[in-house]
Amino acid sequence: MPHSLQPQPLTPEAFAPFGQVLQKDGARNFAINDGTCRRFHDLANVEATGPGGRVIVSLVTGEPSTLPLLVEMVERHPFGSQAFHPLSRNRFLVVVCEDEDGRPVRPRAFLTSPGQGVNYDRNVWHGVLTPLGETSDFLIVDRDGEGDNLEVFTFDEPVLVRAPGE
Amino acid sequence: MPHSLQPQPLTPEAFAPFGQVLQKDGARNFAINDGTCRRFHDLANVEATGPGGRVIVSLVTGEPSTLPLLVEMVERHPFGSQAFHPLSRNRFLVVVCEDEDGRPVRPRAFLTSPGQGVNYDRNVWHGVLTPLGETSDFLIVDRDGEGDNLEVFTFDEPVLVRAPGE
Repeated sequence: MPHSLQPQPLTPEAFAPFGQVLQKDGARNFAINDGTCRRFHDLANVEATGPGGRVIVSLVTGEPSTLPLLVEMVERHPFGSQAFHPLSRNRFLVVVCEDEDGRPVRPRAFLTSPGQGVNYDRNVWHGVLTPLGETSDFLIVDRDGEGDNLEVFTFDEPVLVRAPGE
Repeated sequence: MPHSLQPQPLTPEAFAPFGQVLQKDGARNFAINDGTCRRFHDLANVEATGPGGRVIVSLVTGEPSTLPLLVEMVERHPFGSQAFHPLSRNRFLVVVCEDEDGRPVRPRAFLTSPGQGVNYDRNVWHGVLTPLGETSDFLIVDRDGEGDNLEVFTFDEPVLVRAPGE
């Protein structure tokens, strides 16, 4: 039996060791444009370091996964943060690990609520993009530049993320 | 009678003098995550210059406008680009001007197709966020930092943006 995890609801507090939740609820906000708009300001710790590092904006389309799901690997980006915001109300799965001596340990799984995005802090171990339910589009804010910005770790034993309530 | 404009469909080619259209169609793309995702890469010229300039990610909720619409002012940001991507399929209105000796001239109006976003290049004159139809959420990628990053210009004669086909 692989190590198994019950995904938890994604909240800013629970996710704080790994990055930020992109959501309006609880965010600092103020009116702009003569009061016709409300801005929820500066939600992510955006970092683009290393040689030639710069912040880029991309889109991604991802095929859906289903739970339970075997997670075989995680990755991290030593030079930059990476934000994903859904362009739909579809949920996605967020898997993160703490780091111990360069190895990912103590995996955690979070299930987004509709409309929530995430920003992984620079060098935080995380699973690949995992939309649930149906093919989903996301906007990405991350880093381009020179140097090797990708580190991959394959688990000796895959981690099983259970369906909620199972 | 104010000067009036017929909004045109937003295309990367027509918008090129002012910035970039954020869309998958026609964008450089490649498979990631073992082929389960397709990434449409580096779609915006993100700039965050000036003292303490850094790229930030924010959300905004905007009340809808209706066409025809009187546009009384435009603004620009000398230190940074500004990207808006809708988090719904609602359209929005994009008004931009060329610059001539520090004044906005030759206003243009574009109507987005569902799902299109825009990035205004640094220092490009543009109208404020103008969702159409219903209250709409957007993700913003722009600049924070020190210095005065906002220049506003109020037209002597407002510009009337007509409804499509009128």
